Amino acid sequence: MDLTHLHLLSATEAARLIRDGVISSEQLVEACLAQIRADDDDVQAWTFLDPEYALTQARALDQLRLEGRPIGPLHGVPIAIKDIFDTADMPTEYGSPIHAGRTPSRDATAVALLRGAGAVIMGKAVTTEFAFLSPGKTRNPHNPAHTPGGSSSGSAAAVAANMVPLAIGSQTAGSTIRPASYCGVIGFKPTHGLISRHRVSPLSRTLDHVGLFARTLDDIALLAEQLVAFDENDPDTRPRAGIPFSSISVEEPPLAPMFAFIKTPMWQRADNDTKEGFDEIVEQLGAQVEEVELFPSAQDAWQWHQTIMGAEVAHNFEREWQNHRDLLSEQLRGQIERGLEVRAVDYQRALKLIPLLHDSFVELFEQRYDAILTPAAPSAAPRGLTSTGDPSFCTLWTLCGMPSLTLPLLQSSEALPIGVQLVGPRGGDARLLRTARWLSKKMAEG
Amino acid sequence: MDLTHLHLLSATEAARLIRDGVISSEQLVEACLAQIRADDDDVQAWTFLDPEYALTQARALDQLRLEGRPIGPLHGVPIAIKDIFDTADMPTEYGSPIHAGRTPSRDATAVALLRGAGAVIMGKAVTTEFAFLSPGKTRNPHNPAHTPGGSSSGSAAAVAANMVPLAIGSQTAGSTIRPASYCGVIGFKPTHGLISRHRVSPLSRTLDHVGLFARTLDDIALLAEQLVAFDENDPDTRPRAGIPFSSISVEEPPLAPMFAFIKTPMWQRADNDTKEGFDEIVEQLGAQVEEVELFPSAQDAWQWHQTIMGAEVAHNFEREWQNHRDLLSEQLRGQIERGLEVRAVDYQRALKLIPLLHDSFVELFEQRYDAILTPAAPSAAPRGLTSTGDPSFCTLWTLCGMPSLTLPLLQSSEALPIGVQLVGPRGGDARLLRTARWLSKKMAEG
Repeated sequence: MDLTHLHLLSATEAARLIRDGVISSEQLVEACLAQIRADDDDVQAWTFLDPEYALTQARALDQLRLEGRPIGPLHGVPIAIKDIFDTADMPTEYGSPIHAGRTPSRDATAVALLRGAGAVIMGKAVTTEFAFLSPGKTRNPHNPAHTPGGSSSGSAAAVAANMVPLAIGSQTAGSTIRPASYCGVIGFKPTHGLISRHRVSPLSRTLDHVGLFARTLDDIALLAEQLVAFDENDPDTRPRAGIPFSSISVEEPPLAPMFAFIKTPMWQRADNDTKEGFDEIVEQLGAQVEEVELFPSAQDAWQWHQTIMGAEVAHNFEREWQNHRDLLSEQLRGQIERGLEVRAVDYQRALKLIPLLHDSFVELFEQRYDAILTPAAPSAAPRGLTSTGDPSFCTLWTLCGMPSLTLPLLQSSEALPIGVQLVGPRGGDARLLRTARWLSKKMAEG
Repeated sequence: MDLTHLHLLSATEAARLIRDGVISSEQLVEACLAQIRADDDDVQAWTFLDPEYALTQARALDQLRLEGRPIGPLHGVPIAIKDIFDTADMPTEYGSPIHAGRTPSRDATAVALLRGAGAVIMGKAVTTEFAFLSPGKTRNPHNPAHTPGGSSSGSAAAVAANMVPLAIGSQTAGSTIRPASYCGVIGFKPTHGLISRHRVSPLSRTLDHVGLFARTLDDIALLAEQLVAFDENDPDTRPRAGIPFSSISVEEPPLAPMFAFIKTPMWQRADNDTKEGFDEIVEQLGAQVEEVELFPSAQDAWQWHQTIMGAEVAHNFEREWQNHRDLLSEQLRGQIERGLEVRAVDYQRALKLIPLLHDSFVELFEQRYDAILTPAAPSAAPRGLTSTGDPSFCTLWTLCGMPSLTLPLLQSSEALPIGVQLVGPRGGDARLLRTARWLSKKMAEG
């Protein structure tokens, strides 16, 4: 085995080789660290990384395995953690100077679950300021003059640059699907409330989701399986059985899936590469896809999202607004100012409309379709590092709490990746992975 | 058996006598109707009452029993339903001209549970306009020149006037405890989320509770036991085991209960009769009561209640505000106007403070006390029918969703009843009834 290429392994392969004693976690982590040394000057995916500490974790996990103790599904596999998730052993700074040097004493629930599954917490990945819009230092691994997207910039870039096989991030508008699309990896945002956000810096309880990054669908399924758990500290999680993502996602669908191609009112923002790419997919899918008009009641969803996000961001940043206003970016200050003006009646009305809107999509799925097919972003990663791009193709699905996933199936004329987004009904997460696998295979067949 | 006095029976006694075949439901309902004929010109507790239909229900229930079919715990017992609960067979007008003649096609969940338990739905009891402040026609059975309290005016008055042994109402600030105190009956507001509010006219999801009225603690326990149920249509109910109110409430407490006498900042509003009454109780309880100062963080609770109620009332009455503003009372219009101005950040802050406030009370209970002892209202029922009185002694406990109960243990110098309020921690409902029983007995011993 060529130990210098272990960083190219998927998490699923790596976990198997470690379990079987073919490679050690230390060797895997060393290969990933070598890749980081080679590329991170260009990519800048990390805000905290202590190579020696990563290796210490790996050696301890190797020791556990050698002692014959029970090991978890991610035993020895490194993962990047967006720097809005608390880590008990590393700083967590939220991408803000207000929290420079902050080191929490407890893990976020999601991080604790990953440790429990045996993962090596590789380091903290760059986030935009508080997972909002103001960019961090990360660049797109495909072209450092282009944005990696945000807000989970480092998570997407680290996976794309083969620095780690897995990463977690978050999404409140388009913060997982958009950077995954720009960086050419798979991004998955499960149903709202499936993964705990306890000890994760909040923007909006209603809209915040944990997001997953990997280079293969197997890895997405493996990672998702570790993270779904009831957490009494996240009031939106519910006690429920575990979801066998891995086994469901590899099942053959009983019938070839049907896709509803929904352009949404954002279609006018899509560039030619994206439009042409979708033309090709639609052609290739033939009878398995139908274009579906978004119903009129959904047209206001972008406004409702803005109302809810405004109100909840203003609520969550009351302390920073009072005490550290000068250390907030202009973008975040503007958002808080607008949010402070939101009236409670408008906020409540928007909240009330979410389940009604979701019901309309449920009808669509029940009638005929396995997944909605729609762009992940208006274009490939835009040139420049001052903006993280446009989340508007994600807003509607995030608002509804629906599971969504992007697959790196298209390319721009400049050879930058373009994602294809699939969306399912709430709770249809594992099935969505199954549908995504079918689509990947279909597209690979050409 | 003297059939002309059956209306004086408690629900528990009546249900037993019906079950044993000693009396029929028809005889019981006939006695209650006679009482209504005798007294309702003065009391005006009912907004809808069809004597023949009540008797029809009673006869059908008698027939069931005669056929040896299984019967419920309230079989044949009449109950009054506040006119904000939907009833499939009677008008439900919410005390508002906007809904004059409205007859829903489905029962509220609470009403359906009562029917399932075998109760006779006697009729609809007067509510203030939409269970807010603007009074209905009902008068206090102890003195028709005095208010019965509100908003569950008819429910409290009908039970006090022996027209029915049981009634249900609601409480968003003090709408159960206050009229029960004024009318001299037992009022019980269980923990928030214990009883479904589906198909009950909403003022405020966060603050609305179903309330119970009866003349004995046995009856309160019997009624509560029928109403606690998970309802997926009320997002604040949770799947949980039934609560054996009747058996727990008759248990002897292992130790004599300790009471925390809390005056709250509202004490200054209490009149001399109330203050003197509480002096006597405190003296009589001796070592079993201690005065406890309300912690400073609770002082703002009345303001938070106003913020939440304002915001949620404005939300719930958007349609009436748009389409029927002229048919709303000035009081409700004023409330909506103030509520429309509430900012989403202030609303969210108030919501967030509720569990923190409740936690402080939990500490109090865990340390030492079985129940909080506090007035139910500042005075006996005030003279006049233009106001339903002051709910401020109930606001704090309603805000926290804590179970509270009033016992008619005191009297004013004009011989009007004055209630003594007991409050427990959320979920401590059945224990609170046990404590209340101990207190009733202790006071009866003098």
